[in-house]
Amino acid sequence: MKKSGSLENLSEALRRLPGVGPKSAQRMAYHLLQHDREAASALGHALLNAVDRIQHCAACNTFTEIDVCETCQNQERDTHLLCVVETPADQMMIEQTLTYKGLYFVLMGRLSPLDGIGPKDIYLDKLITRATNGTVTEVVLATNFTNEGEATAHYISETLKARGLKVSRLARGVPVGGELEYVDAGTIARAMLDRRAT
Amino acid sequence: MKKSGSLENLSEALRRLPGVGPKSAQRMAYHLLQHDREAASALGHALLNAVDRIQHCAACNTFTEIDVCETCQNQERDTHLLCVVETPADQMMIEQTLTYKGLYFVLMGRLSPLDGIGPKDIYLDKLITRATNGTVTEVVLATNFTNEGEATAHYISETLKARGLKVSRLARGVPVGGELEYVDAGTIARAMLDRRAT
Repeated sequence: MKKSGSLENLSEALRRLPGVGPKSAQRMAYHLLQHDREAASALGHALLNAVDRIQHCAACNTFTEIDVCETCQNQERDTHLLCVVETPADQMMIEQTLTYKGLYFVLMGRLSPLDGIGPKDIYLDKLITRATNGTVTEVVLATNFTNEGEATAHYISETLKARGLKVSRLARGVPVGGELEYVDAGTIARAMLDRRAT
Repeated sequence: MKKSGSLENLSEALRRLPGVGPKSAQRMAYHLLQHDREAASALGHALLNAVDRIQHCAACNTFTEIDVCETCQNQERDTHLLCVVETPADQMMIEQTLTYKGLYFVLMGRLSPLDGIGPKDIYLDKLITRATNGTVTEVVLATNFTNEGEATAHYISETLKARGLKVSRLARGVPVGGELEYVDAGTIARAMLDRRAT
């Protein structure tokens, strides 16, 4: 059997989604065509729409359809604080805590020399320009606590401290609700070193 | 942070793909927008294209862009044999064996009363019309050997035999390369009952 061109194209295009292999791509294509053509159209339009409209915020670098995103335009935000996160999803998690009222900078990634991701790919120049605008007094590094996230935080920290900025990092320690028996030794060691007077 | 409309739409549309949850959908959306906008465009166009062009073959019911697919139009095929499969992927597997030169009928599914999939959803009327065209002398049932596939085969078999057609089923038994120690008892029992003179 020769597959029809459009079907083959669709399978190949679906394979380019992260985490989708040839079998899943084929299954997705058959599912959409057989059971949910409406979803296929919706996804098609959503993709073209997003590619067409979504750009990076001129200030915080997150995805937005306008020049400067709503968060950055918000007059009630504390403009002295700048929180650096890896992804928009991380930013959303911090927003949900309701503990932070400053502004953000979204790196859209992390340093990862092995994958060829260097300072340019995490928009370091844009971050430096943003952080040294004269208003920002403290940069809070909230990259992940993975090896790559820590390395990224370290690199950014050195770069910004050299420019006279105050740089902080989210506290490390035992998670809320954590039982010591089940927390890894590295975390407990860190919590011991960073112990605080009560 | 409020997500931009296009981004939210894209995440929601990606969630409608089979096997994609909210976290994967978001990851896919970020990945496409940050690292592979070209793939996003390609997928968008491929989806709209496929929805627009792909229909069911008038003869064998598979996906095709033309009225009657290339396999059905092939003059070298044995028109007396009709092989019934669940999906185009199954058809492809059979084609790869190079042991079958007849034509096909693709059910695009299997009977599954629990999921509300009845005879209409597997195009049974179309199959009956196709099988009773006067040329077909034998229908080979090649649905899966799962409970649902077996039930589907049984149902189709009864329906077609009542119309005087010869109906056969792919042989069951120990797979090629199979070691008895690791083959399930049901398969060995079947192979014993269906044993053949050598």
